[in-house]
Amino acid sequence: MQKDTQIIGIRTIIEAIKAGSTIDKVFIQKNTQGELMSSLLKLLKQHSINFSYVPVEKINKLSQGNHQGAVATVSPISFVPLERLVEEVLSKNENPLFLVLDQISDTGNFGAIIRTASCTGVDGIIIQKHGAAPVNATTVKTSAGAVFKIPICKVDHIKDAVFYLQASGIKSFAASEKSTKTIYETDFKTGLALIMGSEEKGVNPSVLKLVDAIVKLPVYGEIESLNVSVACGAILYEVVRQRL
Amino acid sequence: MQKDTQIIGIRTIIEAIKAGSTIDKVFIQKNTQGELMSSLLKLLKQHSINFSYVPVEKINKLSQGNHQGAVATVSPISFVPLERLVEEVLSKNENPLFLVLDQISDTGNFGAIIRTASCTGVDGIIIQKHGAAPVNATTVKTSAGAVFKIPICKVDHIKDAVFYLQASGIKSFAASEKSTKTIYETDFKTGLALIMGSEEKGVNPSVLKLVDAIVKLPVYGEIESLNVSVACGAILYEVVRQRL
Repeated sequence: MQKDTQIIGIRTIIEAIKAGSTIDKVFIQKNTQGELMSSLLKLLKQHSINFSYVPVEKINKLSQGNHQGAVATVSPISFVPLERLVEEVLSKNENPLFLVLDQISDTGNFGAIIRTASCTGVDGIIIQKHGAAPVNATTVKTSAGAVFKIPICKVDHIKDAVFYLQASGIKSFAASEKSTKTIYETDFKTGLALIMGSEEKGVNPSVLKLVDAIVKLPVYGEIESLNVSVACGAILYEVVRQRL
Repeated sequence: MQKDTQIIGIRTIIEAIKAGSTIDKVFIQKNTQGELMSSLLKLLKQHSINFSYVPVEKINKLSQGNHQGAVATVSPISFVPLERLVEEVLSKNENPLFLVLDQISDTGNFGAIIRTASCTGVDGIIIQKHGAAPVNATTVKTSAGAVFKIPICKVDHIKDAVFYLQASGIKSFAASEKSTKTIYETDFKTGLALIMGSEEKGVNPSVLKLVDAIVKLPVYGEIESLNVSVACGAILYEVVRQRL
């Protein structure tokens, strides 16, 4: 099991980015200025690395050492570029199965979903840089180590990823309770990408407009909503069943 | 949302039991003696209430007040006796669906399973007094309130519950990775009870011996094990699909 690791200090983070470290997120102390900080911010934007401004108390809590106003968390895995993922998967598998997560923000759900994806033969997982739960020690634990077994790709926008998958001949199916079509009325035998939305908002409306079909699980009773990792598992297993 | 509540002090707990309170568990300080404590212990055994002996530090931490060596946690729901549950369900539903949880001990999993059960039309959940996660504030939250919508029954032994269900004409299916028969080769259209085992040990071997069939989800990859709430959801949805 790998633990969360940190990179502390502006200069160290700059060097880590240049050396190709898998940085998950950078926390920057509010109102920190200077030439070095400007260089860091430029690099973060160039490499589309997630960052946020936080008060000094939070950054002190995050790191014990002399942080100079910046602390980065490092991901225990390397992310795969979308183009490479799609190319590699398509070269091996005629009917691939991709899983696209639109801002699943709870690490417990994220880990459980990665674990299920591994058990159901998902070829690759695509997440968005902004709004997604990090790949950290909790994710590693709740995924039962599956984060190390399945390629994960981070994209700027889910919308662009869906476009790219469609252009590569892969159908996209978004899960939404508002659909009238159940997964049992849907053909999952061809190459496809399943899109699951966030716990709070579901799949983004701009993504729903793009997809080939919107599908749902039939739901009884008064609760009318499933945990996203359970829903994802039930749909992935319907794909497995149809492809058996 | 209801919060965990406590009953503090030996005499108060005795009165609460006599008044029919839904006590989940009683914590008793090690080496506490006296007539009143003997009366409490006798009552706990009579009513099959779960209790455990804990060091004084733990009991001090659990309660702020003068606990006299005993603190009880109260369940936010009332449990239904097995006989009444089966009778009521069978009078309304020809092909009932029961869910039996054999010592699922994580409250997060327990809550997610109750939520799924409510969404898939499960008629009642049966848990074991010993070893099961409590119905507390976390369970209420992770179940999204479904604990208040679905009858839950607590039994002394899962084995006896399975016997009783079988005697009432309800087939029992246990989920185990060791089975050779997948859920897709199994007929779930008749009245049935699905038995899910604990995160660590799965369904107890003595229960596996009793059941009508042992079934599994097909699993790919190197992880080879699903989170129990995800597995439970995928199987319950196969029941839903077959019954549609």
